[in-house]
Amino acid sequence: MRLSRYFLPVLKETPGDAQVVSHQLMLRAGMIRQTAAGIYAWLPLGKRVLAKIENIVREEQDRAGAIEVLMPTIQSADLWRQSGRYDAYGPKMLRITDRHDREMLFSPTAEELFTQIFQNGAKSYRDLPRNIYQIQWKFRDEVRPRFGVLRGREFLMKDAYSFDVDYAGACHSYNRMFIAYLRTFARMGIHAIPMRADTGPIGGDLSHEFIVLAPTGESDVFYHENWEKGRDTAHVDADDAGALEAFIDGLNADYAATDEKRDMAAEAACAPSLKQSKGIEVGQVFYFGEKYTKAMGVTVQGPDGAAITPHMGSYGIGVSRLVGAIIEACHDKDGIVWPEAVAPFKVALINLRVDDAACKAAAETLYAELTAKGVEVLYDDRDERGGAKFATADLIGLPWQLVIGPKGVADGVAELKRRGGDRIEVPLAEAAARLV
Amino acid sequence: MRLSRYFLPVLKETPGDAQVVSHQLMLRAGMIRQTAAGIYAWLPLGKRVLAKIENIVREEQDRAGAIEVLMPTIQSADLWRQSGRYDAYGPKMLRITDRHDREMLFSPTAEELFTQIFQNGAKSYRDLPRNIYQIQWKFRDEVRPRFGVLRGREFLMKDAYSFDVDYAGACHSYNRMFIAYLRTFARMGIHAIPMRADTGPIGGDLSHEFIVLAPTGESDVFYHENWEKGRDTAHVDADDAGALEAFIDGLNADYAATDEKRDMAAEAACAPSLKQSKGIEVGQVFYFGEKYTKAMGVTVQGPDGAAITPHMGSYGIGVSRLVGAIIEACHDKDGIVWPEAVAPFKVALINLRVDDAACKAAAETLYAELTAKGVEVLYDDRDERGGAKFATADLIGLPWQLVIGPKGVADGVAELKRRGGDRIEVPLAEAAARLV
Repeated sequence: MRLSRYFLPVLKETPGDAQVVSHQLMLRAGMIRQTAAGIYAWLPLGKRVLAKIENIVREEQDRAGAIEVLMPTIQSADLWRQSGRYDAYGPKMLRITDRHDREMLFSPTAEELFTQIFQNGAKSYRDLPRNIYQIQWKFRDEVRPRFGVLRGREFLMKDAYSFDVDYAGACHSYNRMFIAYLRTFARMGIHAIPMRADTGPIGGDLSHEFIVLAPTGESDVFYHENWEKGRDTAHVDADDAGALEAFIDGLNADYAATDEKRDMAAEAACAPSLKQSKGIEVGQVFYFGEKYTKAMGVTVQGPDGAAITPHMGSYGIGVSRLVGAIIEACHDKDGIVWPEAVAPFKVALINLRVDDAACKAAAETLYAELTAKGVEVLYDDRDERGGAKFATADLIGLPWQLVIGPKGVADGVAELKRRGGDRIEVPLAEAAARLV
Repeated sequence: MRLSRYFLPVLKETPGDAQVVSHQLMLRAGMIRQTAAGIYAWLPLGKRVLAKIENIVREEQDRAGAIEVLMPTIQSADLWRQSGRYDAYGPKMLRITDRHDREMLFSPTAEELFTQIFQNGAKSYRDLPRNIYQIQWKFRDEVRPRFGVLRGREFLMKDAYSFDVDYAGACHSYNRMFIAYLRTFARMGIHAIPMRADTGPIGGDLSHEFIVLAPTGESDVFYHENWEKGRDTAHVDADDAGALEAFIDGLNADYAATDEKRDMAAEAACAPSLKQSKGIEVGQVFYFGEKYTKAMGVTVQGPDGAAITPHMGSYGIGVSRLVGAIIEACHDKDGIVWPEAVAPFKVALINLRVDDAACKAAAETLYAELTAKGVEVLYDDRDERGGAKFATADLIGLPWQLVIGPKGVADGVAELKRRGGDRIEVPLAEAAARLV
C-alpha cells in the first residue's frame, strides 16, 4: 500500500480525553475515531489489526472443532423472557421497539439464541457434542464507557457455546476451549493468564478469565509467579480428554484468581511467590450446566430413548478489546510495537528522498519485490521530511522499517531496522528476501 | 469436515411460509433460520457461503483501490440531522434511545458517517481521490419483510464512498466501481446487468442498479438482448480514465433500465431486440456530487489555497442478498447448484457403506488426501442410506460428488459426478488429484 493513496490520519497531539495509553495511541495512529460515547469507527489501520486478530481467533476455534455460524445483532425480547434474563439483565441491555411495536434488543451475548438454534437442529445424542461459535458485534450500554475499545459499548466478540450429553463431556469441551485460548493469545504475541473468576450474569459453577497483565487494567489479580513464564501447549492432544485434563490441572495447580475469587488460604500457601497486578480481561470461559437448556426446555433423545438435557458452556473472546489490550502490553515512548502476527503491515518502506531519482527507483523496485513476495508493506512515498516519516513509522509500530536514502543507494544498500531495535545495512538486492 | 460432527439441520418438507425458491432452499438446506420477522441466523453452511461472497467482494474492492474501514452499526441521530435525513428517512430507520436518553439509530446506510470520517482525516486536495468502504450489517425496518434474505431487515452490505476534487474525477471513481461490480458478479458465476435506475433516498443525478434476471425478482426490467451475453472485462485498465469511460459507454449504448427509468423512445429504437423480465437488484452505484459534503460543510484546501467541496458517490452491494439471488439463478428441482466460487464446500465425499471396512478405508484415505491438498470437502460419514446421502448432497448443491461404494472399491474406482451432470468412474488413486 502506498501511503500517498492510503487513509492514515495520524495526530500529532495526544487527545486530552484519552486516559490510557492504548486509547491515546489508537487515536494518534489513526486506527479509530469515536463516533458516539463508547462507539468507534475503525479506520483502515485499525481495521487491518482487527481482521488479523479475528482470523487468529477463527483459526484456533476451527482447529478446536468449533463450527462457525452468525447470529443477528437484533433479537426478540420474547426469547430472553424464556430464560428470565430480559428483566434480569438490567440497563446495560440496549432495548429497542420496532415499527410494529415489537420489543427487540441488541444482543449483549447470545446464550438464548444459540440454545434455540441448537434445539431446532439437534434431535439425538448422536448430534452431541457440538461447539458452535460466532464472531459478531455486541452492544452493552455501559453507564460510563471509557478507555477506548477496552470498555466500549459496541464491541466485537467471539462467543462459542458447547452442548454435551453430560458433565464429563462438558468438562472436556471446557478444557478444549481452555487450551484453544492459551494457543490463541500466544499466537498474538501476548501472555494471558487463566484465573478463577466470578460467573456474573452468565451464571454457572465454573469460570476462568484470561487476563493480560497491564498496569492500566481494571481488574486486580493475584497469581503465582510461575504464571509469568510461557507455557508450551504444542504437545497437548486436545482429543485426549484425560491427557488434556491432566495438563490443565497441572497449570491450575499454580494459584491465579481475580479479586472476586481470592482464596486467602491458597494465597498464604504460595506466599513468597504470590504476585499482585492489574490486568485486562481478554477472554472468559464458563461452565453452566443445564441453566439455559432447562429454562428453555431443550432435550435430545438418548440411546435408550429417554430425554437428555444437554450441559452447556460458553466461551467469549473480546476481539476488539484485544486490539487495545495488545497495545497496553506492547508499546514504548514512541508508539505501538506490534507483535508480528497482528501487525497491520509487516514492513514500513521509507523513501527519505522522493525527489531523488535513484532513491525513487530503488524504493519502487523494493516495493514491487516485496509486494510480489506477498509481504505486507506500507510504502511511505509521501513528500515529507525523513523525521516525520520515522515518527509515523514508530507511532504505528510496524515490526520492520526498510529505509532508502541517497547515501545508501549510492553504496547499493538500504537500512533495515527492527521496530525499537538497531539499524543494519543490507544490500539492496537482498533486502526483500530478508523480509519474507 | 465430517458431516457426523457438523451442524447441518436439513428439512425434508418445504416450509409453508417461504414463497420463493431461494428462501425455501436456504431453509431446507440448513443455511438459515428465521429468528424474528425479516431477521435470520446464519447456520454453518450459510455462513460459509456468506464468507465466500464477502471475500470476493472484498478482493475486487481492494483491487479497485478502495480502502476498507468498519463503521459502528449504532450511530448518533445528531449526525443524520446535519444532512436532513433523520426526519426524511421515515419509518424504515430503526430508532433507538440509549440509557442516557440519547437518540441513536441502527445504520441503514452510512453516507453521513463516512463523510464525517473523511472530513476528519483529509485536509488537502492531495488527500483525494479516495474511496473508502466497509462490509457491515445494516438494518432497515421493512414494513413487510419477505423472500428470506432477499428482503430481510438485518442484512450484510458492502458500502463504498468516493471523494473527488471535481466532476471528472467523480466520474472516474464511478466508472471504477462500475467495472469492479461487473467483475465481482462474474466471479460469483452470475450475470448482473447494469441498468439506469432511480436514486431514491440516497439522492443524486446518476445511478445504476446491477440486476440479476430471475422470474421471482421484485423489479420489472427492460433491456437490449445484447445484455444477455457476458462481457469480457479482463483487458480493461481501470487506471486509464478515458479507456474505462469508452468501454462503459460502449456497454451502455445497449439500452437497459428499471421500471422507474424507462425511456419509451429508446425502447422503440431497439424494439425487436427489447426484452422484459423480472430482476433482483444485487448492487447499486450513485453519483450525488456535493449533496452530503455541502450539507455537512466538508472542504479540503485546493492547490491555490481556496476551499474545494468534494464530489461524492456511493456504491452498495447486497452481500447477504446475493446468497439468495445466486440460488434464484442457480438451482434445479433437486436443490441448489452452487457456482464453484461461492460453494460452501467443493466436494461431497459420500461413503455409501460406513459399515464396510474397505469402503471406510477408501473414504478415509480420500478425505485425508483431499484435506491435505486444501480441497474443501464435506465427508458424509453418517450411518444413513445412500438415497438420503444423495438427496442431501443434491439439496445443498456442492459442485462435485465423489461416491465410494463396495462394488467400486472392489474394482479400485470411485464415482465422480458434477452436480446435475453424469457420473464417471475414476481410479481411487487418481480421484483426489482430479478435484484439486
